[in-house]
Amino acid sequence: MIYFDNAATTKMYPECVYEMQKWAEYDYFNPSALYKPSVEVKKAIDGARKTLLKYLKGSTSGRLIFTSSGTEADNLALFGSKKWNGAGIVVGDGEHDAVRAAALELKSKGYNVKFSPINRDGSVNMEKLEQLLDENVAFVSIMHVSNETGAVNDIASISKLVRKKSPRALFHSDGVQAFGKVSVNLAAWDVDLYSISAHKLHGPKGIGALYLKNGVNLKPLIFGGGQEDGLRSSTENTPAIMAFEIAADKYFENIEDNNNKKRVIFERLSNLILRYAPDTVIISPENGAPHILTVAFKDVRGETLLHALEEYQIYVGIGSACSSKRESRFKQLLGLDESHKEGIVRFSFSEFNEISDADTAEKIKECFEKLSKYKRR
Amino acid sequence: MIYFDNAATTKMYPECVYEMQKWAEYDYFNPSALYKPSVEVKKAIDGARKTLLKYLKGSTSGRLIFTSSGTEADNLALFGSKKWNGAGIVVGDGEHDAVRAAALELKSKGYNVKFSPINRDGSVNMEKLEQLLDENVAFVSIMHVSNETGAVNDIASISKLVRKKSPRALFHSDGVQAFGKVSVNLAAWDVDLYSISAHKLHGPKGIGALYLKNGVNLKPLIFGGGQEDGLRSSTENTPAIMAFEIAADKYFENIEDNNNKKRVIFERLSNLILRYAPDTVIISPENGAPHILTVAFKDVRGETLLHALEEYQIYVGIGSACSSKRESRFKQLLGLDESHKEGIVRFSFSEFNEISDADTAEKIKECFEKLSKYKRR
Repeated sequence: MIYFDNAATTKMYPECVYEMQKWAEYDYFNPSALYKPSVEVKKAIDGARKTLLKYLKGSTSGRLIFTSSGTEADNLALFGSKKWNGAGIVVGDGEHDAVRAAALELKSKGYNVKFSPINRDGSVNMEKLEQLLDENVAFVSIMHVSNETGAVNDIASISKLVRKKSPRALFHSDGVQAFGKVSVNLAAWDVDLYSISAHKLHGPKGIGALYLKNGVNLKPLIFGGGQEDGLRSSTENTPAIMAFEIAADKYFENIEDNNNKKRVIFERLSNLILRYAPDTVIISPENGAPHILTVAFKDVRGETLLHALEEYQIYVGIGSACSSKRESRFKQLLGLDESHKEGIVRFSFSEFNEISDADTAEKIKECFEKLSKYKRR
Repeated sequence: MIYFDNAATTKMYPECVYEMQKWAEYDYFNPSALYKPSVEVKKAIDGARKTLLKYLKGSTSGRLIFTSSGTEADNLALFGSKKWNGAGIVVGDGEHDAVRAAALELKSKGYNVKFSPINRDGSVNMEKLEQLLDENVAFVSIMHVSNETGAVNDIASISKLVRKKSPRALFHSDGVQAFGKVSVNLAAWDVDLYSISAHKLHGPKGIGALYLKNGVNLKPLIFGGGQEDGLRSSTENTPAIMAFEIAADKYFENIEDNNNKKRVIFERLSNLILRYAPDTVIISPENGAPHILTVAFKDVRGETLLHALEEYQIYVGIGSACSSKRESRFKQLLGLDESHKEGIVRFSFSEFNEISDADTAEKIKECFEKLSKYKRR
């Protein structure tokens, strides 16, 4: 099997699974209870918080709130931030649905929501963003790395721009595809809110987190027992939180080597694709995140190729895993011609891939040959 | 160690941990992707849904939406249900904070929220509830089993009452402490919404579910990729969902024997407590859920006793694990005299307890003797 859909989700590290087991079977105590074993669990959770803040370079500049997913973290940021009546909200036009759908909900509530246009590689267009920012904007959300193309937005520059043009606005960035793939420095970049998720870096599903800069406060999305500084009620998911920490530790241990390996797979695969299918458009930028290679094949539907490749046990994505509607919206944004529009395929890599996996491109060639045979009939 | 805080959370079944591991390490595919392994994962999730609906006796009457917790399920019910301007909302005065805090938030938004008084055993007072129900009520939430006392509310009768007096209202019940402890029949009882949680029955933390009767629809709390019928976006937490199913299967296999064992521990422990400390008030009703025994000791603080008992590695609760504020509110409701008000302790049992664990009552006696020595000094 060659698994090339790591931007959708990743295989968990075995060490991480072991960690989950330990906390689920032996240290299962409710962290909000008052006896010692619970107090110990609470301490461990706060340790995991510190570890993640360290990797985000936000240890002194802010705090971290655990959520059940990156999506929930995004929703908490968008819905929980203070906004005045009729306030402007600016979000990237290429945002993940976790941000986009929440923004549309805010629009239906009467906020002045604007979508900031993206470039052909999926990154946000800085000039157009600047035009949308004004004194009435209360909230800006621009993703760090595009889940569709791997394009990296310059969060430091965007933060500066937001401060200058919209001084009352909070600046949120969805870092779900960025954390562990490109460098992150939340303190230096002066970001108010930043979302991450464990299952994109070999951690468990069902756990994410939201970074809040010091002084930033939110209204909760989920009310109840007052866990997570009152911002996210529910019994703490200790096994998942602790596995998130272990995943991050293991991930960052060899991060350079592993990201270099992903980059090599990216280069090799894109070169081979262009050799076998020269009409293919490489959408992902050269200087993007190393783990996402998105291309548009000519005269073939991405979904058809996905199913042809799965016959070889090669698993790829066709944009966001979530919904076909989403995918069809996104392809309009990239300025592709008619013959390429339907042919978007996303190959996404993890450290569990080998460089030789790129040779799978030969199978793409075979698929093309088969598919063109069918066409001739 | 004697763990008597199973109403706060439970130890996971080893089988359940194994199941989580399998799905996390080997069948980790994103259920929303289009290739076969993902389609298989999606099928498995829907199988888990069916299994849980079967145990809720709601297979034909409704559907199940997975959430990240019982708290989230409660919040989704309260916030997601349709309400007209100025609508009435009635919730029990003894509800868990997941319902209460959400209701207070709705109150701050201008809804006419009323709290339905409870009896001395923690159950809702039916006459007073009837007085609060009228044509303008849009939503009623009454928990099935009190997390504080184990008192069981008659959900079938409450449902009938709501239909009669508030025909436009949706009826929600928080079943987090009821599912697996007392019989549940959602189809027969005509319940609109019902919340459950896995970690109360030896399943994983971080997973809950909300039952919706056929025809009932909600607005989501978390927007994004449109998972869970569009009602709860986020990558599905497959390992936790599948472990929830296994936990339910294992739990219901020997449910009668195990609940009988809990009942025996309940009886034996309460008898011994009354023998050693005759001034103790037994708050939990005789006909309540088998797993919760809540008592009020005389002239001793519950928290003091909790810490004294933990020296013997006996772990008990003092009401809802979540917050001390919550606990102090609840004790006002039970009509205890001054000498008992501070002495509430909750003992809660699971199948991992043994009948002999009840003999721990001797340790309570020892604690009392020690504590009274300190007093004399």
